[in-house]
Amino acid sequence: MEKRIGFIGLGNLGIPMAKNLITDGYHLQVYNRTTSKAKELEQGSITVCSTPAEAARNVDFVITILSEDEVVKDAVLGDNGFLKTMRPGALHISMSTILPDTSEELLAIHNDAGSRYLAAPVFGRPEAAAARKLWICTSGAADVKEAAKPVLESLGQGIIDFGETTGGANVVKLTGNFMIMAALETMAEGYTIAEKSGLDRKQVADFFSSTLFACPIFQNYGKFISAKQYEPVAFKAKLGYKDARLALKVAQQTETPAPLVSLVHNRLLTSVAKGNGDNSDWIAAFGKGVSDEAGV
Amino acid sequence: MEKRIGFIGLGNLGIPMAKNLITDGYHLQVYNRTTSKAKELEQGSITVCSTPAEAARNVDFVITILSEDEVVKDAVLGDNGFLKTMRPGALHISMSTILPDTSEELLAIHNDAGSRYLAAPVFGRPEAAAARKLWICTSGAADVKEAAKPVLESLGQGIIDFGETTGGANVVKLTGNFMIMAALETMAEGYTIAEKSGLDRKQVADFFSSTLFACPIFQNYGKFISAKQYEPVAFKAKLGYKDARLALKVAQQTETPAPLVSLVHNRLLTSVAKGNGDNSDWIAAFGKGVSDEAGV
Amino acid sequence: MEKRIGFIGLGNLGIPMAKNLITDGYHLQVYNRTTSKAKELEQGSITVCSTPAEAARNVDFVITILSEDEVVKDAVLGDNGFLKTMRPGALHISMSTILPDTSEELLAIHNDAGSRYLAAPVFGRPEAAAARKLWICTSGAADVKEAAKPVLESLGQGIIDFGETTGGANVVKLTGNFMIMAALETMAEGYTIAEKSGLDRKQVADFFSSTLFACPIFQNYGKFISAKQYEPVAFKAKLGYKDARLALKVAQQTETPAPLVSLVHNRLLTSVAKGNGDNSDWIAAFGKGVSDEAGV
Amino acid sequence: MEKRIGFIGLGNLGIPMAKNLITDGYHLQVYNRTTSKAKELEQGSITVCSTPAEAARNVDFVITILSEDEVVKDAVLGDNGFLKTMRPGALHISMSTILPDTSEELLAIHNDAGSRYLAAPVFGRPEAAAARKLWICTSGAADVKEAAKPVLESLGQGIIDFGETTGGANVVKLTGNFMIMAALETMAEGYTIAEKSGLDRKQVADFFSSTLFACPIFQNYGKFISAKQYEPVAFKAKLGYKDARLALKVAQQTETPAPLVSLVHNRLLTSVAKGNGDNSDWIAAFGKGVSDEAGV
Repeated sequence: MEKRIGFIGLGNLGIPMAKNLITDGYHLQVYNRTTSKAKELEQGSITVCSTPAEAARNVDFVITILSEDEVVKDAVLGDNGFLKTMRPGALHISMSTILPDTSEELLAIHNDAGSRYLAAPVFGRPEAAAARKLWICTSGAADVKEAAKPVLESLGQGIIDFGETTGGANVVKLTGNFMIMAALETMAEGYTIAEKSGLDRKQVADFFSSTLFACPIFQNYGKFISAKQYEPVAFKAKLGYKDARLALKVAQQTETPAPLVSLVHNRLLTSVAKGNGDNSDWIAAFGKGVSDEAGV
Repeated sequence: MEKRIGFIGLGNLGIPMAKNLITDGYHLQVYNRTTSKAKELEQGSITVCSTPAEAARNVDFVITILSEDEVVKDAVLGDNGFLKTMRPGALHISMSTILPDTSEELLAIHNDAGSRYLAAPVFGRPEAAAARKLWICTSGAADVKEAAKPVLESLGQGIIDFGETTGGANVVKLTGNFMIMAALETMAEGYTIAEKSGLDRKQVADFFSSTLFACPIFQNYGKFISAKQYEPVAFKAKLGYKDARLALKVAQQTETPAPLVSLVHNRLLTSVAKGNGDNSDWIAAFGKGVSDEAGV
Repeated sequence: MEKRIGFIGLGNLGIPMAKNLITDGYHLQVYNRTTSKAKELEQGSITVCSTPAEAARNVDFVITILSEDEVVKDAVLGDNGFLKTMRPGALHISMSTILPDTSEELLAIHNDAGSRYLAAPVFGRPEAAAARKLWICTSGAADVKEAAKPVLESLGQGIIDFGETTGGANVVKLTGNFMIMAALETMAEGYTIAEKSGLDRKQVADFFSSTLFACPIFQNYGKFISAKQYEPVAFKAKLGYKDARLALKVAQQTETPAPLVSLVHNRLLTSVAKGNGDNSDWIAAFGKGVSDEAGV
Repeated sequence: MEKRIGFIGLGNLGIPMAKNLITDGYHLQVYNRTTSKAKELEQGSITVCSTPAEAARNVDFVITILSEDEVVKDAVLGDNGFLKTMRPGALHISMSTILPDTSEELLAIHNDAGSRYLAAPVFGRPEAAAARKLWICTSGAADVKEAAKPVLESLGQGIIDFGETTGGANVVKLTGNFMIMAALETMAEGYTIAEKSGLDRKQVADFFSSTLFACPIFQNYGKFISAKQYEPVAFKAKLGYKDARLALKVAQQTETPAPLVSLVHNRLLTSVAKGNGDNSDWIAAFGKGVSDEAGV
C-alpha cells in the first residue's frame, strides 16, 4: 500500500493527528485554510497544497478534520472541492463533529461520484491526540471500515464500531459531547454550592473524581472547573456551542425532548452572545458562567 | 472500649451497616419505627429497643441512619428521643442525608446537653454498604472525628474529612446526590437520543462507561438506564426527591442559581406527583421519565 | 383594478380569509394540496386550480397562507411553482408563519424574476379570521406595503408596519407566538398550583383574566386551560411545535439565550413525540402537559 | 363603629394604604420597625407606637402589610407581638404576601387566643395603592370576610373572595406574582429577540400590549422592559425573589412540577446572588438579566 494521505484541517486536533501519521511513515498532502499552520509540520514528510482538490489527488485516503458541517461540505463540493479529484474508490474518512444528516448526504454524493465515505469522529483533547489516545467512533459499510482501519490505528487507542448506519458514529460523538457539557454544568453547579457553603472547592472535586466519578471527564475537566482555571483555550466556546446546537438538532430530528440539552445549549450560547466565543474555552462557559451568576 | 452502640434506623442501608458492626463484635441496641425490621438481624448480638431513648442508654455511640431531617430530629428530641438518655460525652454519629442546618442545630443541642455530635453521611447503595464499600464524609471538631473513627472504619472503604464546619459533610453528600441525579438525567437524555437515532442503547452506554465516563456512577447506574431496567426498587423516588429538595434548599441558602438542580428536582417531583414516589426507584424517575416524554 | 387574486392555502385560516375576499368582490384562483378543501368555497366566485402555477396566472396578487417554510418555497419554486407564471411586477403576499430568512430568500428570488414580495403574517385563530379581526404585521419596501394595503384591509382589523427589513414582520409573528406559548405555560402551571391547593381553577382564571391579565390571550386561551377543554383542535400541536422551533432558530441566529423559548419548545416537542402532534391542540400540549406531570 | 385601626408596616405599599385609611376618617395606631417612616404620615390622624403590641391595643382591626412570613409571625407572636394585647374578637387582617401555611398557622393561634384572622393579600404597585386601585383577595370564614369589608373597601377597587380555605387567597397572590414574573421573562426574551433582529423594541412592545396582550401587566411592565428603564426601584429584586421562593414552595407542597416557576426563581436568585437584591427592581432581574446574557 502506498502510504500517502490527503489531510485537510490543521486545527488543534488536526496538527497532532497529522504528526502521528507522519511518524508512522505516511506522506501527507495537507491543506488548511490558513496556510501558515502547515509550518508546524514542516520538518515532516508533507506536501503543502493550496486547495482541497490538490490534497486529494492520487491518494487512497482523504481525512477531513474541520470545524463544521458547511466547511466539510465545501471541502468536498466547493469550487476547489476534492470530490472531482479523488481516485475512483478512494475513501473520505470524515473525522469532524458533524450532523448524521451531513454524513448521509456526503455518502450519497461519494457513491454517485465513485468514491467512498466513512464517518469516524473522535473523542479527545489535543494532548490525547498527540498521545494517540483518541477514541474513534465509526459506522457504515463493513468494507469502508475495514479499509480505514490501518490509518485510524495510527491515531487512537481504540476504534469503536456502531453499526451500519452511516451517521451513527456522528450521533455517538454529539451525544458524548453533550454528556461532557452536562458534566461541566454538573460540576460547576455542585462545586459552586460547595464553595459557597464554605468548603474547599478543590477538595470536593478531588473526592468525587477519585470515588463515584473517577473517570477521565470528571478528573480532567474537574481540575479546571475546581481551580477556576480557564486558560489556555483548548476548545473554543463557539465550537462547543456549535456542537450543542447540533446535539439539539439531533434531539429535534429524533423527537426527543431533552431539557438538559437545552440548558447546556443556552449556557454556551450565552458565552458566545457575550462575545467570548473565540477567546474562551467551553469549560469557562460553564465554570465561569455559574460562578458569575452566583456572584463569586 | 465497651463495644456497644445505639443503632437507630433499619432501612435499606441501616440493615447491612448494622450487620457489619455486629460482625465486628459490636453489640447493637437497635431501634426502628417498624419493629419487624429487626428480625433481619435476629441471629446477631442485638437488643431490640422500643424507643430511641432506650437504644441510647449506657452507650458511647448512637448512630442514626434515617430517612429525613424531621425523623432524625424526632429521634433526638421527641418524647421518646435519646437526648435525655445519652451518657455525658456520648457521641451521636449522624449518617443520614440531611441539611447542614439540621446538623448545626443538632450540634448546638448536643453541646447544651453535654453530649456530642458528628455529621457522617455516606455514599453507596445497599450492596456497597454490605460490602463495607461506603464512602463516609465527615466534618466537625477534631476530637469527635477521632472518636468516631473506629466505628466508621467498620462501615466503609474510606473516611473523607471535609474540615471543621459541622454541616460541611452534609453539603458534600447533597452535592454528590445532585451529581448522581444529573448523571442520570444526562444518560437518560443521551441514550434516548441515541436510541431514537437507531443506535443500540446498551452499546452506546458501554462505550461511554468504559472510556470517558469509566466510573462507578456511569457504570452502575448506566446499566439500569441503558437496559431500561428499573426493578427492584433500591432507592425510592420519593427519597430521591427529598434529597433534590434539600440540594435546592442549600442552593437557595448559599445563593447559588443552579438550573440543573431545578431540572432534576422537577424530574423527581414529577415522579412523586404521578404517584410513583413509593413504588419506583429514583433511576426510573429519570430513565422512564425521559423515555415517556420521548414516546418510547 | 382587476379584482382577481391567486390564493394558495385553504387551511383553518385560509378558508375564512378567502371567504372574506370573495365577499369583498374578489375572484379567487385557489390552489390547495388537498383539492376537496375548495368545496367549502364553492358557492363563491372562485376558480379551482390544480397547481400553484395556474393560480398565479394573470393576477396582480398571490397570497400564500401555508403551514411551513418548505411548503411556501415549493409553491414558489417547485416544479409547479408560481414564480414562472407570475406577471411582471405582481406581488406575492406571504402570510404564513415562516422564518425571516425565508422571507429574505424569497424577496431575492422575486426581485430576480421581476415580481415582488411582502411578508405579511397574521395573528388570530380561525374565528378571528372569519370576523376580519386578524392583526396583520408587515415589513419591507414602502411600495409593496402600499400595494398590498387594499387586499389586507379585507382580512384584518389592523395592519401594523414594522419597518423596511423584509423579514421583520416574520420575527414579530414568531415572537408573538412564543409569547402565546409562554402565556399557556404560565396559566397551566399557575392554575394547576391553585387547583392542587384546593381552589377553583376557573375562578382563579376568571380573576386574573378580568384584572391584571385582562387581554385576549389570557381570556381566550385561559378559558380552555382553566376548563381543561382541549377540543376541538383549532391549531395542531405539531404546528405549534414548528413555530417554537422557528422561534428557537431566530433566538440562535440572533444569539439570544432564551430559556423560556427552550421550555415551551420542549413542551410542544413532548406532545409531538408522544404522538399527539396531529390529534391535539397546542393548548393541550401545555394544559394537559402540566396536568399530567402533576398527576391530576 | 369606632374608626381606629392598628396598622403595622409602613413600606412602599403600607404608606399609601395608611394614607387612604386616614383620608377615610380612620385613626391609625401605626408601628414600623424603622420609626422614621411614620413621618410620611405625620400630618394625619395617627398615633406612633413603639411596638406591635401597642399598635393593637383597644382596636377592632389590626392590619399587617409586611415583607415576609417571619416578620409577620414576629409581629403577632414575638416578645412585643400583638397577640396578647388584642381585644377579644378583634380581627387581624393579614395583607402581606405570605405562605398559605403561615395563614393556617396564624388562624389557629388567633382562634386559641380569642382573636380572629383574615388573609387578604393585595395586587398592585405603590401608585395603585395610592389610587385605591389595589385588587384584594380574601379567603376564610364568612363572618371575618364580612367584618373586614368596610376597611378593605377603603383600600382597593375590588375585593375578590376565594372561598373558605384560610390560605386560599395567599395561594392566589403567589400564583399571581408568579404569573407577573413569567410575563416579565416572556417580554424580556421576546423583545430582546426582536431587538437583536433589528426591530424597534418599543414598537414591538406597543403592538403586543395594545392587541393580544392589552392588559395592565403587559402594558405597565412592558413599558419598563421595552425601554430598559429599571429606575426607580419600586419593588426590590430580593422581595421578588422571596415571592418566587414561596411560589416554588407551594409548588412543592402541592406536588406540582413547575419548570417555569423554577426558571423565574433562578432569574431572581441570580439578581440577589450578584448583589442586586436591594438596589434593583425585580423588573431589572428579568429585563437586564436577559439583555446581559444576550450581550446587549
